[in-house]
Amino acid sequence: MSTTLITNIGELTTNVSSPLGRSGTLTDAAVLIEGERIAWVGPASDVPALPGGYLEVDAEGRAVIPGFVDSHSHIVFGGDRAAEFEARMAGEKYAAGGIRSTVAATRGASDDELRARLRGFLDEMLAQGTTTVEIKSGYGLDVETEARLVRLAAEVTPEVTFLGAHVVPAEYADRGDEYVELVIGDMLDACAPHSKWIDVFCETGAFTVPQSRRVLEAGIARGLKPRVHASQLGPGEGVQLAIELGAASVDHGTYLSDEDVAALAASDTVLTALPGVEFSTRHPFPDARRLIDAGVTVAIACDTNPGSSFTSSMPFCIALAVREMGMTTAEAVWAATAGGAAALQRDDIGVIAPGKRADLVLLDAPTRVHLAYRPGVPLVKKVWKDGVAVR
Amino acid sequence: MSTTLITNIGELTTNVSSPLGRSGTLTDAAVLIEGERIAWVGPASDVPALPGGYLEVDAEGRAVIPGFVDSHSHIVFGGDRAAEFEARMAGEKYAAGGIRSTVAATRGASDDELRARLRGFLDEMLAQGTTTVEIKSGYGLDVETEARLVRLAAEVTPEVTFLGAHVVPAEYADRGDEYVELVIGDMLDACAPHSKWIDVFCETGAFTVPQSRRVLEAGIARGLKPRVHASQLGPGEGVQLAIELGAASVDHGTYLSDEDVAALAASDTVLTALPGVEFSTRHPFPDARRLIDAGVTVAIACDTNPGSSFTSSMPFCIALAVREMGMTTAEAVWAATAGGAAALQRDDIGVIAPGKRADLVLLDAPTRVHLAYRPGVPLVKKVWKDGVAVR
Repeated sequence: MSTTLITNIGELTTNVSSPLGRSGTLTDAAVLIEGERIAWVGPASDVPALPGGYLEVDAEGRAVIPGFVDSHSHIVFGGDRAAEFEARMAGEKYAAGGIRSTVAATRGASDDELRARLRGFLDEMLAQGTTTVEIKSGYGLDVETEARLVRLAAEVTPEVTFLGAHVVPAEYADRGDEYVELVIGDMLDACAPHSKWIDVFCETGAFTVPQSRRVLEAGIARGLKPRVHASQLGPGEGVQLAIELGAASVDHGTYLSDEDVAALAASDTVLTALPGVEFSTRHPFPDARRLIDAGVTVAIACDTNPGSSFTSSMPFCIALAVREMGMTTAEAVWAATAGGAAALQRDDIGVIAPGKRADLVLLDAPTRVHLAYRPGVPLVKKVWKDGVAVR
Repeated sequence: MSTTLITNIGELTTNVSSPLGRSGTLTDAAVLIEGERIAWVGPASDVPALPGGYLEVDAEGRAVIPGFVDSHSHIVFGGDRAAEFEARMAGEKYAAGGIRSTVAATRGASDDELRARLRGFLDEMLAQGTTTVEIKSGYGLDVETEARLVRLAAEVTPEVTFLGAHVVPAEYADRGDEYVELVIGDMLDACAPHSKWIDVFCETGAFTVPQSRRVLEAGIARGLKPRVHASQLGPGEGVQLAIELGAASVDHGTYLSDEDVAALAASDTVLTALPGVEFSTRHPFPDARRLIDAGVTVAIACDTNPGSSFTSSMPFCIALAVREMGMTTAEAVWAATAGGAAALQRDDIGVIAPGKRADLVLLDAPTRVHLAYRPGVPLVKKVWKDGVAVR
């Protein structure tokens, strides 16, 4: 079992309140990693005696944070939609129907093509500090392709989400209820064995609230846990449905009523903001300040996908959260780490504490504030995933 | 002399109209580098016969663009202003006076400290595709420190700008005219030998138009070429002054009258937009669409500085230009390469053509559109500076 001691950490974001750092932040700190887990966290001056043979990493006063937990991505797909992006920037409106063009490219791609692409995105994410990523299906929209997508996702992460109800495919146009039958029938049969989560895009242009309920309840009956896309493009009842069904997270959430916010605050459901989407669609950003002040648990994720948000950069999303969503950098970093873990109902990641997975990021900056203060600059210097230095 | 052939370039942005690519873009292209210069550009199927011993780089269908020309930076300084950034994000207003806190830290730093910091920024910029950078003084504001800053800048770039008239230092509070005397007297004497450019911050809270004129004219009389900061925080006459004095560029330009725009269009003066500033100060972005449609030459630069814009990422600024300033990606990439070269009156960089400096960037993407389509993602795969692969 390998042992690594990271010393001379100028600012350590633990996300754990303790007598040493009530805000979840320590200064002049050290972290001891044994195998895949964190063994000890404390002042650099107080490192326990260690046997020989361990690796010492001098952080030289830089900041260390937990690895990012990106709880919302769609990174198994074929093709891209650069032309659609250009048209949108020139004034065309974003519509959920654009998803269908990626469906055609994904159905036409081989497993090896999709796998190579997927692994490219994972490498790119790891280089930017993301150590856990949730991956959704939803660009297959037929039984065979959806099953391929969840199977490919399951090769690289336990956080696999079956999103057959992403949009109604062209061949079911005006027959949304029939498509829902397929999703909760043969498609769910094929996908459930490879999935942990069931998700639905509950929005005008995608699935109605009754359709969304059918999808989620069918998934729950098969042992999947619910999460929901809602209130991205306009107000709706998706948030209330998500809370009623005990969803781990409801994602997007730009258009929330006061009742939605109060219900979220009273629930265990996380609101996952996806500011890359608003950046790349020129839509209004969700008001995270309002949510946090009301007591809602807020996460941030990239929503990496070829249509509405092709960023894979959690630091970029943190910078947007601070500039556009009223969050402090401390809140945004929490949302991108511990918040993401809460959105995935994981208690082994998103914090730096003894017994937790050793997923850590060393920043090339003295404090986490630089993630927002220096937008666009690649500040990730070193990354550990399960105790292994992967970068 | 080393020879490198870059083949299989999916999209080559040359910024040069030719019978092969009237828009300055070639597909399925190749570039031949001999020593520090570009020797040949053309279709990949038409590469000239080469003697043995050259290096071949297969771009595998990816995009190649000219190295970024970042024509506006302030990267010789001490300290940072992360706390001021946090306060601003929490609602405090940006004011030019914050510059003075960096002045104190810069005066207190040794040459070696400033040099180490400067070289760190240059490495960071090169890794993000910036192959030419202009560097301003302006955090010394006394004769000795300003002279140190231009000397340190001259160690790393020919594009050195004397900006003694950045802001009136605290010890000259309410004695701006006296400070201008110092700038155009002893300070100019000490700085001119190391500088190519003279610059002034012509804005309420910094220097008046008559003061700015004195500074610029004194610099011109010493053989320096003028450039001007103007119309960042409100309307003013700085743009007209810049044009009258034949400035290479007027920088910022959020608040421009129709007369300003018409005068810029009729002049050789470039308008350099600095969208990182607007992102990090929550100010309105300049309207590049209006400028381009009127016939103004627009450049984009980072304005890397610890107060108003601490990004050093030209790709991030391109993404902002497309999202916030109404530019197409092609226009934004032109502005960040050929536009920057125009703002520095350089004809040897910013284009990919025979005889020009071999400053090139290989993107990990099939087209330059991905620089805006994938905001925040580090897409720079390889960088050549003067024909040498530096990354």
